[in-house]
Amino acid sequence: MFKYEDNSYDIMAQLKNESLFMIGNGYIGVRGAFEEGYPSGDSVRGSYINGLYDRLDMVHAEKAVGFPTKYDKQPKVADTQTCLVFLDGEPAQLINTKYQNYRRYIDYEKGETVREYEFVTRNNKIAYLKFRRLASFVNLNVVSYSIEVKYDGEIVLLSILDGDVKPYSDPNDPRISNESKDLMEITDIGEKDDTSYLLLNTKNTSILQATLVKHLILTENDYSMDHIVKDERVETRITGSDNLILNKICVFTDGIRYSDPLKSAWEILGHLAYENYQTLLEIQKNYLDKFWDIAGIKIYGNENDQNHIRFMQYQLLQNVGIDPFSNVSAKGLSGEGYEGHFFWDTEIYIFPVLVANQPQHAKNLLEYRYNILERAKERAVELGHKKGAAYPWRTISGIECSGYFPASTAQYHINADIAYAFYVYYEFTKDLDFMVEKGLEVIFETARIWIQIGNFFQDKFHIHEVTGPDEYTALVSDNYYTNMMAKFNLNKAYELYKYFSQIEEPTIYEKFKLLIEKINLDEEEINIMKRAADNMVLLEDEELGIYAQDSTFLKKPLWDLDIDKRPLLLYYHPLTIYRYQILKQADVVLAHLLLEEYADYEKMKNSYEYYEKITTHDSSLSYCIYGIMANRFNMVDKAYEYFNQSVLLDLHDTHRNTKDGLHLANIGGTVLSVIQGFAGLRLNGGNLYFRPSVPSQWEGYSFKISFRNCLVEIDVRREILIKLLEGDYLNLFIYDKGYKLKKGEELRVAIMEVNKDD
Amino acid sequence: MFKYEDNSYDIMAQLKNESLFMIGNGYIGVRGAFEEGYPSGDSVRGSYINGLYDRLDMVHAEKAVGFPTKYDKQPKVADTQTCLVFLDGEPAQLINTKYQNYRRYIDYEKGETVREYEFVTRNNKIAYLKFRRLASFVNLNVVSYSIEVKYDGEIVLLSILDGDVKPYSDPNDPRISNESKDLMEITDIGEKDDTSYLLLNTKNTSILQATLVKHLILTENDYSMDHIVKDERVETRITGSDNLILNKICVFTDGIRYSDPLKSAWEILGHLAYENYQTLLEIQKNYLDKFWDIAGIKIYGNENDQNHIRFMQYQLLQNVGIDPFSNVSAKGLSGEGYEGHFFWDTEIYIFPVLVANQPQHAKNLLEYRYNILERAKERAVELGHKKGAAYPWRTISGIECSGYFPASTAQYHINADIAYAFYVYYEFTKDLDFMVEKGLEVIFETARIWIQIGNFFQDKFHIHEVTGPDEYTALVSDNYYTNMMAKFNLNKAYELYKYFSQIEEPTIYEKFKLLIEKINLDEEEINIMKRAADNMVLLEDEELGIYAQDSTFLKKPLWDLDIDKRPLLLYYHPLTIYRYQILKQADVVLAHLLLEEYADYEKMKNSYEYYEKITTHDSSLSYCIYGIMANRFNMVDKAYEYFNQSVLLDLHDTHRNTKDGLHLANIGGTVLSVIQGFAGLRLNGGNLYFRPSVPSQWEGYSFKISFRNCLVEIDVRREILIKLLEGDYLNLFIYDKGYKLKKGEELRVAIMEVNKDD
Repeated sequence: MFKYEDNSYDIMAQLKNESLFMIGNGYIGVRGAFEEGYPSGDSVRGSYINGLYDRLDMVHAEKAVGFPTKYDKQPKVADTQTCLVFLDGEPAQLINTKYQNYRRYIDYEKGETVREYEFVTRNNKIAYLKFRRLASFVNLNVVSYSIEVKYDGEIVLLSILDGDVKPYSDPNDPRISNESKDLMEITDIGEKDDTSYLLLNTKNTSILQATLVKHLILTENDYSMDHIVKDERVETRITGSDNLILNKICVFTDGIRYSDPLKSAWEILGHLAYENYQTLLEIQKNYLDKFWDIAGIKIYGNENDQNHIRFMQYQLLQNVGIDPFSNVSAKGLSGEGYEGHFFWDTEIYIFPVLVANQPQHAKNLLEYRYNILERAKERAVELGHKKGAAYPWRTISGIECSGYFPASTAQYHINADIAYAFYVYYEFTKDLDFMVEKGLEVIFETARIWIQIGNFFQDKFHIHEVTGPDEYTALVSDNYYTNMMAKFNLNKAYELYKYFSQIEEPTIYEKFKLLIEKINLDEEEINIMKRAADNMVLLEDEELGIYAQDSTFLKKPLWDLDIDKRPLLLYYHPLTIYRYQILKQADVVLAHLLLEEYADYEKMKNSYEYYEKITTHDSSLSYCIYGIMANRFNMVDKAYEYFNQSVLLDLHDTHRNTKDGLHLANIGGTVLSVIQGFAGLRLNGGNLYFRPSVPSQWEGYSFKISFRNCLVEIDVRREILIKLLEGDYLNLFIYDKGYKLKKGEELRVAIMEVNKDD
Repeated sequence: MFKYEDNSYDIMAQLKNESLFMIGNGYIGVRGAFEEGYPSGDSVRGSYINGLYDRLDMVHAEKAVGFPTKYDKQPKVADTQTCLVFLDGEPAQLINTKYQNYRRYIDYEKGETVREYEFVTRNNKIAYLKFRRLASFVNLNVVSYSIEVKYDGEIVLLSILDGDVKPYSDPNDPRISNESKDLMEITDIGEKDDTSYLLLNTKNTSILQATLVKHLILTENDYSMDHIVKDERVETRITGSDNLILNKICVFTDGIRYSDPLKSAWEILGHLAYENYQTLLEIQKNYLDKFWDIAGIKIYGNENDQNHIRFMQYQLLQNVGIDPFSNVSAKGLSGEGYEGHFFWDTEIYIFPVLVANQPQHAKNLLEYRYNILERAKERAVELGHKKGAAYPWRTISGIECSGYFPASTAQYHINADIAYAFYVYYEFTKDLDFMVEKGLEVIFETARIWIQIGNFFQDKFHIHEVTGPDEYTALVSDNYYTNMMAKFNLNKAYELYKYFSQIEEPTIYEKFKLLIEKINLDEEEINIMKRAADNMVLLEDEELGIYAQDSTFLKKPLWDLDIDKRPLLLYYHPLTIYRYQILKQADVVLAHLLLEEYADYEKMKNSYEYYEKITTHDSSLSYCIYGIMANRFNMVDKAYEYFNQSVLLDLHDTHRNTKDGLHLANIGGTVLSVIQGFAGLRLNGGNLYFRPSVPSQWEGYSFKISFRNCLVEIDVRREILIKLLEGDYLNLFIYDKGYKLKKGEELRVAIMEVNKDD
């Protein structure tokens, strides 16, 4: 059985475990707070709906033109978790001396989290308690709980639907909100047919959010149930004995997706009339069987890593939005760090996982970006651009929500990151309709920004005043990552323009003509884009034989301050950090992962070695990139070390803030560490490349990839075995050697022995 | 008579004229709001005490380490201006059709402002009203008003001492506070012996501020006076007829300078027992006779400019703090722009005027900087430096009060600007005691920062992540101005260390030894400073033959956006502005004014021509520098144009914000335009240099300079006449030719004919 378990209760780990044991389905997320409550300690009793937001004023110490004046914030929605347990009047909670045989785990195959223990009462009677919960992958509105109590005596369950939901805040950590204002007000609350209901409303954006909790009792004994509706909550009291099982069927809806959320919630609940926890779990299992069959990565010879990689894949499944109203926030639906905002993490760390095995979900992430394109165009105007789209660095609804522009708005690279994802989707699917209807517009409008913020100087194209992925250096000229991604963005705008200008399919061509008319794009502008791309400066240092992160970076001193103060951003003024050659996360190295076709191998390798030494990995987006790229340079031991760092980041809370939610980009990156790292998957010039290696800690691994009309399985052990499961034929490269694989064929290639201790 | 006059009342110009007609003496400033009130229109009825501050929370949209959490703000103090006038019950106010013969002027010789007019009542009776006011230059605590009314009927004066003082705010202009909270609370209020009194307290810093207003009636007719004490104000009603003169003798004190401000105010008032407005004015005139004799610039053949230059000198006298608790805020004591904060304006634009003719006042400005040295050391630690002092970009009490670090904290050059002023003072006075007791410590501690924020790279010393004076470019490497000033700071630290190490005077030497022991400064550190200074990179562009503002500046595009949107900072996002070769104010050119000894003449001239074209002068600190430097390159017509721009900046409100207060740096710069501009005064290698020229609009000019023990007069017409009025001898250079002048001698040199239309 694949599962993640934690079989000891630690009051100090409550917050962290609430994140790790969250349940979710891309629409709703519920942190793993205890139903019966904690004896003490911190808790963030949060449930979140993807894409739901309130909007608050942003106050600047000194305002300037184009600084955002408002920002989105993800609110908590109604809390459905609570179910206090009383045994002959005594509250059951995990006070040290009073419980035994505690177990808790996530079951990835069934799709639930389970917690059970034996509680010892004051009178030394032993009760058995079991708490199970799931968020349905099939019916996204549904969350269900099962609370089972065996006890030789009176059992009282007090189930609460709670509308008193305040955001979590910490004024001293820039990564967490310092705003503790109520975001929700109660519009309607009540109970009907053993079902509690609550209608909340976001205070400033006036988006309704409805929650129902239906109470089902499964017992052969007598019981009673009554409800009390209070101002902010509904309490349901069930009294029974011996063996009492409560199933709660919860339905969540919201005013972004439903015109009358409360009515819709009742309708959805109506369709679930005959379901209980067990039947929902069976549906869940069916869904997961198919999911794991297509998406599941197998790791041979290392059960621990096998479980961990499934944990990561499961968390993606739980946290990635799968409708066009939603996306993936930095913490998914597992916590309140970064206030529920969506960043470039989506396109660079998560999208590449989905595009390879759940292209429809990948597409939904792009649909979201298309949906906010108009806002990005408005933002471009706010920033003084004459045309084009400037995607916000962080947002929910599409508006720029960043308070500190040197490490946000200046990160123009997000424009190219989004264009990159659209292009990768295009290469994986050849979905011409989507491209002509949505993708091209995004690629063209993002490309337009580069020719406005860049300039030709001595025949080269330069881009000034940007910040790359490495936020420990800001507002520089010719950031390597930015320039390389801009080059790609511009190149693809040009190539796609040319391709669609001459496309044979008349309906596609017609749509293309309408598009370029609508956005007023012509040959002249496209040719400027091409000229900028062709002449884009990618700085090098000849002496070091490396690519330079920007025009001044390599002239700065190496960090000689106290490196133990980590993350540096919590100990040093930005000016101090910016003054040194010190990286928060991969920058040049990440550019080489995404676009090795633009770079020279030796210089890439030298760059890796140079920058690795000065990277703090203070960002959780860093380990996985260095790990993947270690493989690129045949340093498999190093790659495994980084893989392990990525795995442990949340599981061992190595960044000490998993309490604020899971690090979704790192989770995506961990999965990519296998696919792009050990297996070496790349898309170069539209072709699939693999360069497999196996770390000494494993016997091998396998996974499946969807590419265009093909489904291909790659199994890597001492020999590489590739099977084309679907599709007529597939061209691919292994260790840079081309192969053509026909349907039903298998390809066997010997694994390359690599220097494992470079 | 030297005066500034404005003989027409314009409701739209009320705010501007409140600034222009302010009265002050460096301690207290009172805006020129009308005693009798306005019929309508805006007013900022402010009075301010130099150095007084409250402290407020600074909120950041996204906080980081070392961002200030509090900031100082200058509060309004009690308002003493109001004296409503009723003529047979009809309020006298300037409603269009009801007045005639309006006159208003500042009399620089007497030291008062005067306003008079004839008011026509409903019954077509004519009253004569005259309002006079002064802030005593002799007794800094004293402000006095004279209100004279001639009217054939009942005259009622209602004099108000008002404690309801709220700050002026504008949430959309970054140059003005967006904070409208009350800063003052009333501690005591009352009336005794026809004297109203009010004790205020700053809300957060708990600094007391006391105000007394004594009412004297000068009339031969009967009158009555009564007082009403209300919650927030004291009203004094005087009823008389025919010819009524009220003199108000106001005393202001504060808790920074007095342990019991109210008690001290009464004592000060006691010493003034026999004074009235007229006697105070006589004392004032005596003071000014001496002041103008020493400091007064004479301009021949242009009465207008003569008056204007006196206006500037008079405003300096009114607004420059002359005790060590005070300084010169950006708006002096004339308004609330920049919240009363002190900037580098003091050292670079105002100090050089004073050091040449009022060295004691110049010294007081340095005393203030020494007083906040400890805070600057603490700030250095906050910024991550191991030692040294980092002076705040803007402050009152000494703490950093900047909300936007790229255009504040990153302007490390303020450290060198302050050190520069200390060094210039030293050269002008050779005041060894002051240097060894205070000056050296400042020069050493500021120099220490450069060797920490700079680094050697390829044998050159570089400084990264700083912002120069030009705030339209930020966070750059090797800003020319910063590097040049840092070089000076380091050189002087080295030279002074060496000089004082071998000084013969034993008491000076002993103090020096104690100082370097106290601050733990040794030869090794001093030698590093010397090495950094010697190898400081000053970037050049060979092709253009100019000095480069920073390492990337000349690679950026020229501004092609709408230049009419001015100032740019109110129309464009900082990122847009930073991306172009566009200057807010002189940067390289200012470095050449201060330190021409470090640069090459031809390159300085080319640099001037290059940067002048791309400077917006959106900062009020720019015209004067370009004007002074135009003279340096013999472009006298251009110099005069800039001089005129500086003159008109406040007088014609060309920056459209004189309402927020006078631009003190520009005012200082206008005076320097004569001394350093047309007369070409420089201090090179410790010697006085003059390079006089006369603009065609003048016949000539003259002024006096104090230098060491000498007082020298320079009179420039077709011939230059130099007289040594005090002191035994003086070495000086005219047009780079050296002369030695003995006491009583005159030196005559023919004026150089320069190309006036370069």
